[in-house]
Amino acid sequence: MTTVAFIGLGIMGGPMAANLVKAGFEVAGYNRSPDKVAALVDAGGRGADSVAEAVRDADVIITMVPDSPDVEAVTGGDDGVFASARSGALYVDMSTIRPDVAVRVAEAGRKAGLRVLDAPVSGGEAGAIEASLSIMVGGEPGDFEDARPVLEAVGKTIVHVGPAGSGQTVKAANQLIVAVNIEVLAEAVVFLEAYGVDTKAALEVLGGGLAGSTVLNRKGTNMLDRQFKPGFRLALHHKDLGIVTSAAREAGVAIPLGAVVAQLVGALVARGDGGLDHSGLLKLVAELSGRGLSGRDTETKEES
Amino acid sequence: MTTVAFIGLGIMGGPMAANLVKAGFEVAGYNRSPDKVAALVDAGGRGADSVAEAVRDADVIITMVPDSPDVEAVTGGDDGVFASARSGALYVDMSTIRPDVAVRVAEAGRKAGLRVLDAPVSGGEAGAIEASLSIMVGGEPGDFEDARPVLEAVGKTIVHVGPAGSGQTVKAANQLIVAVNIEVLAEAVVFLEAYGVDTKAALEVLGGGLAGSTVLNRKGTNMLDRQFKPGFRLALHHKDLGIVTSAAREAGVAIPLGAVVAQLVGALVARGDGGLDHSGLLKLVAELSGRGLSGRDTETKEES
Amino acid sequence: MTTVAFIGLGIMGGPMAANLVKAGFEVAGYNRSPDKVAALVDAGGRGADSVAEAVRDADVIITMVPDSPDVEAVTGGDDGVFASARSGALYVDMSTIRPDVAVRVAEAGRKAGLRVLDAPVSGGEAGAIEASLSIMVGGEPGDFEDARPVLEAVGKTIVHVGPAGSGQTVKAANQLIVAVNIEVLAEAVVFLEAYGVDTKAALEVLGGGLAGSTVLNRKGTNMLDRQFKPGFRLALHHKDLGIVTSAAREAGVAIPLGAVVAQLVGALVARGDGGLDHSGLLKLVAELSGRGLSGRDTETKEES
Amino acid sequence: MTTVAFIGLGIMGGPMAANLVKAGFEVAGYNRSPDKVAALVDAGGRGADSVAEAVRDADVIITMVPDSPDVEAVTGGDDGVFASARSGALYVDMSTIRPDVAVRVAEAGRKAGLRVLDAPVSGGEAGAIEASLSIMVGGEPGDFEDARPVLEAVGKTIVHVGPAGSGQTVKAANQLIVAVNIEVLAEAVVFLEAYGVDTKAALEVLGGGLAGSTVLNRKGTNMLDRQFKPGFRLALHHKDLGIVTSAAREAGVAIPLGAVVAQLVGALVARGDGGLDHSGLLKLVAELSGRGLSGRDTETKEES
Repeated sequence: MTTVAFIGLGIMGGPMAANLVKAGFEVAGYNRSPDKVAALVDAGGRGADSVAEAVRDADVIITMVPDSPDVEAVTGGDDGVFASARSGALYVDMSTIRPDVAVRVAEAGRKAGLRVLDAPVSGGEAGAIEASLSIMVGGEPGDFEDARPVLEAVGKTIVHVGPAGSGQTVKAANQLIVAVNIEVLAEAVVFLEAYGVDTKAALEVLGGGLAGSTVLNRKGTNMLDRQFKPGFRLALHHKDLGIVTSAAREAGVAIPLGAVVAQLVGALVARGDGGLDHSGLLKLVAELSGRGLSGRDTETKEES
Repeated sequence: MTTVAFIGLGIMGGPMAANLVKAGFEVAGYNRSPDKVAALVDAGGRGADSVAEAVRDADVIITMVPDSPDVEAVTGGDDGVFASARSGALYVDMSTIRPDVAVRVAEAGRKAGLRVLDAPVSGGEAGAIEASLSIMVGGEPGDFEDARPVLEAVGKTIVHVGPAGSGQTVKAANQLIVAVNIEVLAEAVVFLEAYGVDTKAALEVLGGGLAGSTVLNRKGTNMLDRQFKPGFRLALHHKDLGIVTSAAREAGVAIPLGAVVAQLVGALVARGDGGLDHSGLLKLVAELSGRGLSGRDTETKEES
Repeated sequence: MTTVAFIGLGIMGGPMAANLVKAGFEVAGYNRSPDKVAALVDAGGRGADSVAEAVRDADVIITMVPDSPDVEAVTGGDDGVFASARSGALYVDMSTIRPDVAVRVAEAGRKAGLRVLDAPVSGGEAGAIEASLSIMVGGEPGDFEDARPVLEAVGKTIVHVGPAGSGQTVKAANQLIVAVNIEVLAEAVVFLEAYGVDTKAALEVLGGGLAGSTVLNRKGTNMLDRQFKPGFRLALHHKDLGIVTSAAREAGVAIPLGAVVAQLVGALVARGDGGLDHSGLLKLVAELSGRGLSGRDTETKEES
Repeated sequence: MTTVAFIGLGIMGGPMAANLVKAGFEVAGYNRSPDKVAALVDAGGRGADSVAEAVRDADVIITMVPDSPDVEAVTGGDDGVFASARSGALYVDMSTIRPDVAVRVAEAGRKAGLRVLDAPVSGGEAGAIEASLSIMVGGEPGDFEDARPVLEAVGKTIVHVGPAGSGQTVKAANQLIVAVNIEVLAEAVVFLEAYGVDTKAALEVLGGGLAGSTVLNRKGTNMLDRQFKPGFRLALHHKDLGIVTSAAREAGVAIPLGAVVAQLVGALVARGDGGLDHSGLLKLVAELSGRGLSGRDTETKEES
């Protein structure tokens, strides 16, 4: 029976670890705040008091933490994943981090005798709960095949996209496309409202043609209703656009729309709207169009 | 039996008129170049030598012409639709034109005793042939209901979106979203290529998540293959972005991404790439990234 | 002695007409609101009750009105400049209007037997009062030479830039450069403030190097002080950016920065800040950076 | 007599060090390639074989190296400036680097017992040769006063702009303004050319009004002539825009024009035009406008 160590039991990691238990894996979980560990134990997993304890006997180690420095912190050091895991274990980082850091982590892991995959996900909290995540995986094809049973317990579309770091590169592209698709939908909605069009009917017909998108299906109605409860917070999308902007610059790739949308998301975060769902881009478009929000944005602000 | 006059038998109008014949309508067609009229006659329609002759006895009159001035030319004047049609006839303009011109045309039509709808379509040549167009309709609800049987013979998703001009407003929003969704996909593809990712696998996983879109499904593979045969020509999309840019300015609506994509489409047209499919935006992104096209763009250029 | 008819005695036209009187010209002035005419009479000019009366005996006719339609209205029609002026008179339009309209007006004037120049100005109210305007002139070189004595009574830098319409084209380019130079200075100021730099000292050293500009010299301190009293109103600059955006599109010229700054100016106008000086672009940059204005913008708003 | 160590004797550092000799300072110079040291010796300076040897007895130490990592490399380590200089010496970094690195370097220097200023320059090779540089200085006011005699030997406008790092922050703002002012001038020039205006006359009248700038004065004619010989290379400006983009993001400051111009400069560098003067932005605007360069850009390309 395969033993899985799961580091990072937050909004995403918690339900993912629970789904691994459900699928029959023996799961040892660790999180900095112990209450999240307790939830895993309730779900049938085993709690660990440290990273080292969690990973010691694991066949597969998964991390799901907020950002690049967190992955480097949890893998490195005397008590980290690489110093504590047994040789030959499979380490799968499912966090969304910088592709260049993913490459560096993979190299460090290999030197420590581990096999390493980067496997960020798309699909949000709902996808984590329903085990329907899309997973984009970078690393060796053989390692990908070995990881597949574990990944299938948490995701639905699971694709190997290239060597180490490639998973993060595709995730960066994903965040670029999503931000731009949301922003242009926001521009279209405010435009339609300004002309007094029946926006609900308009979204229906737009969705049926070449303008259709998953963003329109999932976020369109919320935009019409000024319902910006996350979902995926603008502050996190801001972090991710920093990754894609910087990676594109590094590679000399022009992303004119990406550069502009990064400014708009950055402006919302700077103004204290980082806690809204990323569909909150509509708020800025409306204000830039002198149309405010008609008192409909009752969501709490948080400091960015 | 309902008699339909159809003015403008081009790439879109030709198959649409033929589908009306197939659906059992009596169709009188007119086109400036007589060979298009001959094709309709072959399909079972009736040819007319002038606009006036085509519309004289029609219950429903449809126009499908390139641009705003063409609609004004064909409807106005002593031999135009409004002077020639019988009182109470239903005039449906299915061209893509400026919303403010659509409003003006509707007023002129009403004054001439006609009922008027603007009903632009989305779905391209394929949609016209397969009678699967999306149709966004502006005008009086009663007139919309009367037009429905005719519209159902050429389209699938048929939605009333508001008063006169609203159809064109929604079409303008459609063209805004489509251009931006194409451009950001182009940015993502060049980004992924620059990092050596397996782009085919990447598109598969991107399409399964929040980044999914009809543009990705229909244009993604062509972009990877540098296959820019139209489809929908950049020169036409350039025209349409002129409409949406100007309408947004008129209404004081901010469309930052729309403004940038209009520059990029304009640049391609200025350079002589107006004859490529709008997915040809990838060509510009690739060149701006110093990555050229690897000799893969074998499509003929045309002057814009 | 040369007789000058002056149509449009507003903020700019009023002092310009007065300067012509001072320079020894016989000036017949007309304005829709009679109080402006009274001011000219006080200054030594002659008042006229209509355009026709003002231009009837004039050697040189000047118009200084708000926008393209105003120029067409005042020149056309049975009582307009072209119907009323004597053959061979020199017509100089000093308004800021669309270059294509200027070309059309020049043609109409020539057909009516007049000689026509487009001669928009730069320098604002101060330049009008001090007779130090910059004047960019389009039209026939010989006509330019004939107009020179009159133009020298109101301006300092007076340059012939090409055939009919060229003056307006250069003015459009002027407005493009000015808007962008203001906006980037606003971005730089907010950036410097965010880092706690001594901004006064910073502007001094920036002004001494390659970043130096007339905008920095004239608007920099006002920006630091959040002093946005016009000066040149954003609503007018919005009109002018509409001209340059549309002219650039017409000619197939890419103006990526122009397109973005037009969005920002448009947003300020849509929000009701059209009455601020164009240096008020800083207000938007500050808000987009979550830095507000520290209660320093005490200028009255006006509806756009 | 004050002894100055000068590290980095390139295009800028070479003439600056020579000007210090001329002004009566005892100058010990070091450069990785010994031929540059030889040039300083010819000019009356003293050569050093290592950083350590150069700085050992210096009262003032100046570095003028390409980028942030170079400054960290030359100051840190066992043989670096901080380990080798005597206590109380004044260290002035005149390179253009990241403000946050400048702050870090200042802290490290203080810990090593040195006094530290960041003092980047503007004015280019000509300014270095003529000792007319603009110098923006961050650090303690007392240290600034002590450095003044040395700075006055190489510059003309010398301004203290705030605490450590402020010099670099102002330099970043300088590079932002310059890039945007160049780009909008390029847009204006191509626009004017497209309309057949007399561009030489146009630049004259534009320069006399609110559109006037140092960029227009120094680069305008070169742009008309398609003369893009550096001057200041696009590849360096690309580096600097990376600094300002990243610093603005860090501080939450919106720089929409900065973001777009960074894309354009990046595109030129990606295409192999990094060796052109930054006025070469015109080349891209012309190409995006379908106007090419009429075979006038005879400058050699270099790899970026």
